[in-house]
Amino acid sequence: MSSGGFKTRHLAVVGLGLMGGSLALALREHADTITGVELNAEARQYAVENKIVDAATDDLREGVAQADTVILAAPVRSIQAMVERRIGSYLRSNTLLIDIGSTKRDICEAMGKLPVGIHAIGGHPMTGKEVSGVESSDKNLYRGRPFVLCPTRRTTPATRLRALGLVQALAAVPFEMEADRHDHLVAAISHLPYILSSALVATVAKEGQNDPTVWELAAGGFRDMSRLAGQDVQMMGDILSTNTQAVATLLALFRVQLAMLEAMLISRDDQQLAEFLRPTREARVNWIQKYENGHKNGK
Amino acid sequence: MSSGGFKTRHLAVVGLGLMGGSLALALREHADTITGVELNAEARQYAVENKIVDAATDDLREGVAQADTVILAAPVRSIQAMVERRIGSYLRSNTLLIDIGSTKRDICEAMGKLPVGIHAIGGHPMTGKEVSGVESSDKNLYRGRPFVLCPTRRTTPATRLRALGLVQALAAVPFEMEADRHDHLVAAISHLPYILSSALVATVAKEGQNDPTVWELAAGGFRDMSRLAGQDVQMMGDILSTNTQAVATLLALFRVQLAMLEAMLISRDDQQLAEFLRPTREARVNWIQKYENGHKNGK
Repeated sequence: MSSGGFKTRHLAVVGLGLMGGSLALALREHADTITGVELNAEARQYAVENKIVDAATDDLREGVAQADTVILAAPVRSIQAMVERRIGSYLRSNTLLIDIGSTKRDICEAMGKLPVGIHAIGGHPMTGKEVSGVESSDKNLYRGRPFVLCPTRRTTPATRLRALGLVQALAAVPFEMEADRHDHLVAAISHLPYILSSALVATVAKEGQNDPTVWELAAGGFRDMSRLAGQDVQMMGDILSTNTQAVATLLALFRVQLAMLEAMLISRDDQQLAEFLRPTREARVNWIQKYENGHKNGK
Repeated sequence: MSSGGFKTRHLAVVGLGLMGGSLALALREHADTITGVELNAEARQYAVENKIVDAATDDLREGVAQADTVILAAPVRSIQAMVERRIGSYLRSNTLLIDIGSTKRDICEAMGKLPVGIHAIGGHPMTGKEVSGVESSDKNLYRGRPFVLCPTRRTTPATRLRALGLVQALAAVPFEMEADRHDHLVAAISHLPYILSSALVATVAKEGQNDPTVWELAAGGFRDMSRLAGQDVQMMGDILSTNTQAVATLLALFRVQLAMLEAMLISRDDQQLAEFLRPTREARVNWIQKYENGHKNGK
């Protein structure tokens, strides 16, 4: 199972949820010791009893003090707060610090202010599951999925190589890019979709106030288009509020496309409408084929 | 398996695709004879060989001439054309004519001009599958799913009862409403979602021209939000162009919700944003629970 040469003496995973637990499982054979840091006592107990980690603590300082690799697997705002206010003084020099927060600019900026000697790099694996919690941990969660790495002012060539080794150990596919570029791209494929899903559900909810039957007729199309609106509000609020500018840019670009579609519809220009929709459909069909092949091959 | 008292001597199903084939299978025990009308020779052959229908023809007149129940299971525009131009003179008096087109106003209006004596009523089952074609036919496709019935000027109380019997025979859940109300509701839950999905894919495609990596990072959220954009362009174009007004109304309502979200985001009003997103999330969570329970119970 072990791939690549990534080895760490003492790995600390901060945040034992689905993402952190899965990281610990996937890196099991690459670390001599794994410590989990988690405020929730049940999650700590579950992780230790199921050998996801060797030990667990609710004390950040204690959890990371002996580590030579630290992964921050918490919500975006928590990561940012830890990096800005606390973790710098807890870490040993030469420690690799990586996070898996969903937006990167603010976190990478905060990482850039850590003490020299900390090897800090931003990370964002493009994976997940419908379910959450450490009990859903899955050592293959990262396998074949993109893992974005964003340099900070504390990223040296050595940092980069260690982080790439870690990504390889997860069997994930590394993408290296600046934090701003990352945030722009995920605004398009994650944050804009969430906003559209929420605005759609809000629209149907308004309709439902006049005519509740709308909920009873809703079927598979609405199910898919409304799924993202069911995501955790706190988590998504954090993500949006740390990526306002890129999200606003994407919203503006989206509005142009929507207005074009609407104009063709209202002017009853069926020909033009089909000429808009055909390449759009093609783009989706091409993408889903590659996406599903990637999943099949566990690429 | 047989439910309700629906009985027909000779059922004609016009259009042997997924929907029509599934109708024929589900009504097998309720009809003495089933004839399929279909232009595609392979689909006809498949349907006959697999006993989905007793006989099949590419001639509409021949197919429906002896029928006492006729179901039009073709794309919206084809149904409309058949009703407006041809079928009236082919049908026997007292025949039940029902369609399953996705928009109802134009079709029901056309049905209202059929000869007196035709029992015509509009229908729209809210069901489907990822796959299409008669070879995907499934006798349980309609089970537990909503089936909307819309009256026309050729709908008598007897028409209504026969149509309700047919819906019951499918084990579907009948909803009776005016065509305009139907078209407004499906604009909210089907047509608006399709437009949003297409505009999203078009936005990402624009981004992809500058930075193709956007396609490589796209994951599960984008997959769900882009699925509808992959639907058949001709079919969706027909649907949109026969429901322009309702779709335009829903687009206007959607834009209001989107603008509210955007304003909260840009003004960085996290509190207000959460107060918008929380009931939206709740509405979705409540809906999906009922929807999935309905499916589980095959209600």
